[in-house]
Amino acid sequence: MFEKLALIGIGLIGSSIARATRLKGLAKTIAISTRRQETLDEARALGLGDSYTLDPIEAVKHADLVILCIPVQSYGPVMEQIGPYLEPGAILSDVGSVKGYVFRQMEPHTPKGVHLIPGHPIAGTEHSGPAAGFPELFINRWCVLTPGKTVPAEAIARLTAFWSDLGSNVELMEPTHHDMVLAITSHIPHLVAYNIVGTVSDLEQATQSEVIKFSASGFRDFTRIAASDPTMWRDIFVANKDAVLEMLGRFTEDLQAMSRAIRWGDADTLHAHFTRTRAIRRGIVAAGQESAEPNFGRDRGKH
Amino acid sequence: MFEKLALIGIGLIGSSIARATRLKGLAKTIAISTRRQETLDEARALGLGDSYTLDPIEAVKHADLVILCIPVQSYGPVMEQIGPYLEPGAILSDVGSVKGYVFRQMEPHTPKGVHLIPGHPIAGTEHSGPAAGFPELFINRWCVLTPGKTVPAEAIARLTAFWSDLGSNVELMEPTHHDMVLAITSHIPHLVAYNIVGTVSDLEQATQSEVIKFSASGFRDFTRIAASDPTMWRDIFVANKDAVLEMLGRFTEDLQAMSRAIRWGDADTLHAHFTRTRAIRRGIVAAGQESAEPNFGRDRGKH
Repeated sequence: MFEKLALIGIGLIGSSIARATRLKGLAKTIAISTRRQETLDEARALGLGDSYTLDPIEAVKHADLVILCIPVQSYGPVMEQIGPYLEPGAILSDVGSVKGYVFRQMEPHTPKGVHLIPGHPIAGTEHSGPAAGFPELFINRWCVLTPGKTVPAEAIARLTAFWSDLGSNVELMEPTHHDMVLAITSHIPHLVAYNIVGTVSDLEQATQSEVIKFSASGFRDFTRIAASDPTMWRDIFVANKDAVLEMLGRFTEDLQAMSRAIRWGDADTLHAHFTRTRAIRRGIVAAGQESAEPNFGRDRGKH
Repeated sequence: MFEKLALIGIGLIGSSIARATRLKGLAKTIAISTRRQETLDEARALGLGDSYTLDPIEAVKHADLVILCIPVQSYGPVMEQIGPYLEPGAILSDVGSVKGYVFRQMEPHTPKGVHLIPGHPIAGTEHSGPAAGFPELFINRWCVLTPGKTVPAEAIARLTAFWSDLGSNVELMEPTHHDMVLAITSHIPHLVAYNIVGTVSDLEQATQSEVIKFSASGFRDFTRIAASDPTMWRDIFVANKDAVLEMLGRFTEDLQAMSRAIRWGDADTLHAHFTRTRAIRRGIVAAGQESAEPNFGRDRGKH
């Protein structure tokens, strides 16, 4: 399908793309570039690609598909470097979790004739690094593409086919709409999870051990996403500030209303609120986005 | 071990106790009492006990172990009814998620010679009702007991042995300390989860469908605990008001600090915060309270 895939960055997502591309035979060669020697050595030891370099220019030369898999704050300098060496007709994409910001970073450095189609595979785990990837990561997950307005339909179809072959369902979106939807589905949940785990880690040591001990009562669910890559998440919040603050404002208002209901013993308001939230869970299970098993199925086969 | 176990209420927890007691042979007979005929019929159809009644007095007569498995707001009226019929030497317990409040409800109605040992098995799923229970629910989970000060050690040892036989690790605690620890490990996580799911259900319909579609990016984790029994949770927040508001205050202050860091692009503060929260997750996995598998193991065996 592609002659040469260049992956700039090889963490959880990049390494999963490499593995799945190899498995499905979607590119003749895979070039991997990283900033740090250590990560490059790890990728080489795992046999993720065909060539390995610390120089992103080397990686993108003659590549017909280039995917940035690095924290979004690094896009500017990297684009400045590789921009002039991108091949005419090549597709330039990424996997960042915000799309308005990355579009503004990538677009000025994209030469005429190169097709800029930023992407966001909505898939991942709480683990990071090249060893954390696996080829099935994208199966039955969504991948959102936010192509530039002048990108020809054939290029979009080509990248869509690539993600379909990795197992994903592809959706096209405006970058700003993507950022608003992801603010509430992903960024606020992560912020809240990081926050509650942070509140706990400020408690005195003795209480903290008890929290760990009794975490199965709800808290442990939050710690999973609060164990995600800190650099990636720092970048997301800085890059998607407006949408995040808007949604955080709504969340905080609602929380104050709940707090008030608790303070005044307004049992009916609490009950009504706790009842209507069940429908959303059912919707998610019905949409095939979640397991219907109790406790996410985490106890399955344990006994 | 016991002659007659009386279960007042037969939801997720009560029915799991019934099943495990039967399986392990811990009581000669199991008497089940419910408020609603429909639930009683369901319990009977599932064969959970040896006798079934809508009259809690009938159930507790001659019982040497009585466990309340009903929402905590119902303790007062039920205790008023059954108090005079409790057998001298019997152990009176419960499974409520708050302990200071229930102690205050139960203690005045407990006759001299009856051993009041409230309990809290820290186990559950997001499902409710008699059919949702299963006998392995308590295995490797904690059960906290908060005995009254005058309860003899033999009675505490007897109830401890009962919960150990159900598979739990038993811990003794002061009721108010229990309520503070559970406020942060359980009540605040549930409140926050209910709240974020509520915020989503206020979004316009089109956006809501997109949230469901892309929920795998974080949001779906929250919907699990926000699908828990609304009546039980309404009662918990009303009954544990002081500890919940104290912990909610800390959580909200921390969230405001994060919001401010995002607004002012304070990347270092965000990164430092997101880094220190990883240690708590590692602690929970090391304590055997959580699976180390990515995504709670929910994708295990799917491919």
